[in-house]
Amino acid sequence: MPHIALPDGFPGITGGFAFRPETAKPLRALAEVLLRGPSTLTSAERETIAAFVSARNDCRFCQLSHSAAAAHHLGGDDSSVDAVTRDYMSAPLSSKMKALLAIAAKVQLGGTQVTAPDVECARREGATDVEIHDAVLIAAAFCMFNRYVDGLAMVTPTDPALYDEMGRRMAHEGYLRPSRG
Amino acid sequence: MPHIALPDGFPGITGGFAFRPETAKPLRALAEVLLRGPSTLTSAERETIAAFVSARNDCRFCQLSHSAAAAHHLGGDDSSVDAVTRDYMSAPLSSKMKALLAIAAKVQLGGTQVTAPDVECARREGATDVEIHDAVLIAAAFCMFNRYVDGLAMVTPTDPALYDEMGRRMAHEGYLRPSRG
Repeated sequence: MPHIALPDGFPGITGGFAFRPETAKPLRALAEVLLRGPSTLTSAERETIAAFVSARNDCRFCQLSHSAAAAHHLGGDDSSVDAVTRDYMSAPLSSKMKALLAIAAKVQLGGTQVTAPDVECARREGATDVEIHDAVLIAAAFCMFNRYVDGLAMVTPTDPALYDEMGRRMAHEGYLRPSRG
Repeated sequence: MPHIALPDGFPGITGGFAFRPETAKPLRALAEVLLRGPSTLTSAERETIAAFVSARNDCRFCQLSHSAAAAHHLGGDDSSVDAVTRDYMSAPLSSKMKALLAIAAKVQLGGTQVTAPDVECARREGATDVEIHDAVLIAAAFCMFNRYVDGLAMVTPTDPALYDEMGRRMAHEGYLRPSRG
């Protein structure tokens, strides 16, 4: 049960969005630009970073919904996202993505954990400064979204079909639309 | 030195904002609504939560700039904000603010750390559900802002006069305007 009286029928973070539309607006806009805005990282790659950080923050709602969104960007295949949250170094990913996930893992622990050699490694694997920027900011943003969801004990559904449908909407319709109850 | 080629002459997070205006827009809008939007918590109280969480995340830029903003909301007196970041339980604050800071301290560690008794305690001290929501989201948001600043090693000035001037602008002009270089 949520810690405060969130409106019924809204899963996870959409409960917080329905409760406080004033803060929902910039939070939705941030998710949209980070995960679906113009970028040389694919949306599948960016949703994978989001799911990866959420798994490390033990935020089940964000992990499952963003894993589902990544899978929908990949045509429905969720095996590679699952592999990333289990052990990203052995997952079927580019060396560039592995280097960006290594940076995201440091950001999850704390910003000062990221070192110049971590960034050099990503650059050597072909990451641009904008890609490094975005990987850091996606990881940082999910340290916020995860804490927002769990800090208020928002509803975490258990039905996998619900995450699949949320992932479909997140991937194909995006984050800007107010959620349905 | 920042980990990526941020434009020169922008202190702290404003370097990231100048580098990537697309993400700056929702980040600025989020800070504006959380710290200066309509609320039954004063802006001084909300900036104090921001400075408190930033101190616990060891993010010196955010701690000093938001402490300065809180002080400017209080007519220039920074002694109470300093007391909060040193030892909030003995600081000259309302019992309600102490209960909200206790929740913010849990959020800084991780969302699942917040318990129903923590929230009950805040409610007993007079906090509304919206105030509890906003305390959680401010704490969560600074877990993002702090990681964004330090994860890219953004410039942390040392001159106290610079933080005082930033705090004055943050308190009185707000967060929406693109920063000056």
